[in-house]
Amino acid sequence: RFPKVCALDVSTSRGLVRLGACAKGAGMIAPAMATMLCLVGTDALLGPEEASLLLRAAVDRTFNCISVDGEMSTNDCVFFLASGASGVALDDESRHQFAAALEALLLRLALMMVADGEGATKIMRVKVLAAETREQARSVARAIADSPLVKTAMHGADPNWGRIMGAAGACLAGRYLPQASLHLCGVQVVERGAARMVPTAEQAELKALMKQAEIDIELDLGLGSSSAEVYFADLGHEYISINAEYHT
Amino acid sequence: RFPKVCALDVSTSRGLVRLGACAKGAGMIAPAMATMLCLVGTDALLGPEEASLLLRAAVDRTFNCISVDGEMSTNDCVFFLASGASGVALDDESRHQFAAALEALLLRLALMMVADGEGATKIMRVKVLAAETREQARSVARAIADSPLVKTAMHGADPNWGRIMGAAGACLAGRYLPQASLHLCGVQVVERGAARMVPTAEQAELKALMKQAEIDIELDLGLGSSSAEVYFADLGHEYISINAEYHT
Repeated sequence: RFPKVCALDVSTSRGLVRLGACAKGAGMIAPAMATMLCLVGTDALLGPEEASLLLRAAVDRTFNCISVDGEMSTNDCVFFLASGASGVALDDESRHQFAAALEALLLRLALMMVADGEGATKIMRVKVLAAETREQARSVARAIADSPLVKTAMHGADPNWGRIMGAAGACLAGRYLPQASLHLCGVQVVERGAARMVPTAEQAELKALMKQAEIDIELDLGLGSSSAEVYFADLGHEYISINAEYHT
Repeated sequence: RFPKVCALDVSTSRGLVRLGACAKGAGMIAPAMATMLCLVGTDALLGPEEASLLLRAAVDRTFNCISVDGEMSTNDCVFFLASGASGVALDDESRHQFAAALEALLLRLALMMVADGEGATKIMRVKVLAAETREQARSVARAIADSPLVKTAMHGADPNWGRIMGAAGACLAGRYLPQASLHLCGVQVVERGAARMVPTAEQAELKALMKQAEIDIELDLGLGSSSAEVYFADLGHEYISINAEYHT
């Protein structure tokens, strides 16, 4: 629905380098054409191994943390090209600076990808905190992101904490979460594993915040010290129209 | 949307016993009330252990093989009551007959549950054959049943074999399936791991069959000798309306 491009000038301790990226986005164009394609270019002087390490780390924290409908594509690709035209090679310090810029750039494109997902009307960030392992944090975040009941509640701007806790609970079946707390758009709705009595003024504030285009969900499991984030789209009528009326 | 009741007279080698069951169905009635409840009664003379074994085996093959939207409920229950009023106690032979009747009864109710699922307009049976293990067969069947792209294609009566193979492939990531074959409503659309050129007459037939209220999906993985079945509902506008417009 809109072009997904982004560019950054990166001032590193070794000098200025440029980063640019464009992507074509989520949702199959036709059975014969791939799903997501992203091209990233830079004029930094990078060797193939260095470029691969930088890209993998950034993709892992951006494109691998988004979900439109939980479906795996067979064709998603991110390409990374480094021309070396700036003549700037990176040392440890400037590599950190470059890596941060690359991650910011890819996160921006990844969020555009979700916002442009099939039928998406809003974008949610779910942050899972205090999990035992990063793997656990990721799977809980993904379970919430992929839950049709959560996605439809978000579409309807309903602060339905029960569906969020339900999705997390199904993912952690058999676990007891006496310390769990949940914030929706910054308003606490679950504390110490139980529903919080939200004061009327906060309820009204939350109701208004839920209508915004960006929704923040923060779930603290109270189990450990690992965390993960996933960005996802809501599920509305437009998704059904696009995918039920498409014919092979 | 409709009452879910079923009763059977079971002629066993030890005499006649009766089985009856009723259920209230999928979709929360209100936040304070449970999701699915099913009550099964019989006048056979059953001990608690015998009844539990019979029920668990039947539930495993019926209620545990259905999916509306892939969401786990916190409250689903099946109760089994045996009055003994018939005076008929079961021996090995009659117990097999009784078990078959119980499974048939629960399958009937489970299918009614799916057909009455939120927004459901049709019911699909996905049968996964020739898997390496029953666990693998079940997880592939469930991946297909829970795929929003498959569910919307079914809603739109589209014989989209690509989405079905895609869901199976994502579940078996990294596996090569050179012997896979797929039948939709009895028409073969994938053979030996590739799209089959379906003759025009069969295409027309398939197109008509896809519009029916019951759709049969049969995926042979060509890997082993285990199989599993899952029954699921389609995903259409009504599901979105029910779940996005419901407010806590």
